[in-house]
Amino acid sequence: MSDLDIATLQRRLIDFAEAREWGPYHTPKNLAMALSVEASELAEIFQWLTPEESADVMSDPDKAFRVRDEVADVMAYLLQLAGACGVDVLQALAEKIERNEMRFPPGPAKPR
Amino acid sequence: MSDLDIATLQRRLIDFAEAREWGPYHTPKNLAMALSVEASELAEIFQWLTPEESADVMSDPDKAFRVRDEVADVMAYLLQLAGACGVDVLQALAEKIERNEMRFPPGPAKPR
Amino acid sequence: MSDLDIATLQRRLIDFAEAREWGPYHTPKNLAMALSVEASELAEIFQWLTPEESADVMSDPDKAFRVRDEVADVMAYLLQLAGACGVDVLQALAEKIERNEMRFPPGPAKPR
Amino acid sequence: MSDLDIATLQRRLIDFAEAREWGPYHTPKNLAMALSVEASELAEIFQWLTPEESADVMSDPDKAFRVRDEVADVMAYLLQLAGACGVDVLQALAEKIERNEMRFPPGPAKPR
Repeated sequence: MSDLDIATLQRRLIDFAEAREWGPYHTPKNLAMALSVEASELAEIFQWLTPEESADVMSDPDKAFRVRDEVADVMAYLLQLAGACGVDVLQALAEKIERNEMRFPPGPAKPR
Repeated sequence: MSDLDIATLQRRLIDFAEAREWGPYHTPKNLAMALSVEASELAEIFQWLTPEESADVMSDPDKAFRVRDEVADVMAYLLQLAGACGVDVLQALAEKIERNEMRFPPGPAKPR
Repeated sequence: MSDLDIATLQRRLIDFAEAREWGPYHTPKNLAMALSVEASELAEIFQWLTPEESADVMSDPDKAFRVRDEVADVMAYLLQLAGACGVDVLQALAEKIERNEMRFPPGPAKPR
Repeated sequence: MSDLDIATLQRRLIDFAEAREWGPYHTPKNLAMALSVEASELAEIFQWLTPEESADVMSDPDKAFRVRDEVADVMAYLLQLAGACGVDVLQALAEKIERNEMRFPPGPAKPR
């Protein structure tokens, strides 16, 4: 894991958008829409792959580049949306894991 | 910003899935699909809101809870997918910001 | 195939929305967002299924109901969006098939 | 509305896929994933538009072409998925409208 930190990257994304005057476009609604579009572009890489091919996706350099690129796009919009809504992503995730630990007891189960 | 760190949360997600024996379900393809579904659930909160209402979404306690909850779900699947593919999310994002700084010169422009 | 026709159903959807005064909500942007959300709800039914289980999805009455229900929701928003944009869905599809017949020569190939 | 009919177009889509030997790729799961991806590509056209710009989307010839093209793609995958699951799209929609007429009494209300 790199020693980059999430707050610094979130700051760079804000500066990047401000330098291009994207404020009026970056409503929470539009950022949520863009996040969903990027998540679909990530899914698209996998849509015709068998489960086995999908497990091996990173052995294809072109697909590996696209996976990294789309993971970055999803993360970028997630951080921008969270910033616009005042949500601390890691805190929200920690709380969700705690709720899930109560909802789903350990042991074999189908995920939901 | 909380002092939680992303590697610790990623580890907790792995442990959580292992304790429930979700390994066979968590192919990169299925995780990408689940990520896209969660991103749409986040978008759904905003779908009938005006831009102004969307900017004010966190003033409604019920919607604010849903936003935090779905942001957490998107982050959870993004980290699990990235882990399954050996992608360092923050590194990928830093590289993408650098590519974007070359592609989009600063100054007013419509986002793409 | 039923003898229902698409124009009649499109008309019923318009009447339904008008009776509830949904006009201001039903911008093309919001309808496109709602369509995408419904398509994800349809995908969600399949997200943890193996290819084999997905081929057999309709043998489970609960899943079969959900598939029919979400197919209907996708169709409803597609017809409403197309109506709002003045697009004839069947005409657009016929033209797209013709373009695809030129782009993809017959013979074994991976879909894109 | 054109005098094309849905059953004929559904037949052409089947023939098209068979001629390219896409059967193994066209599981219900993969078709649902592809449908969701295409619905997001349609949403992407609208993501940075204001409500007013979205209402006027068809006055831009490039965007108008993309809207028609993506509407066709969504319809194509919806018909293929419905065919693979034995669902009659128009019948499913008619039944859903009837359920909605019972769930949502006429009169002003926010859509859900």
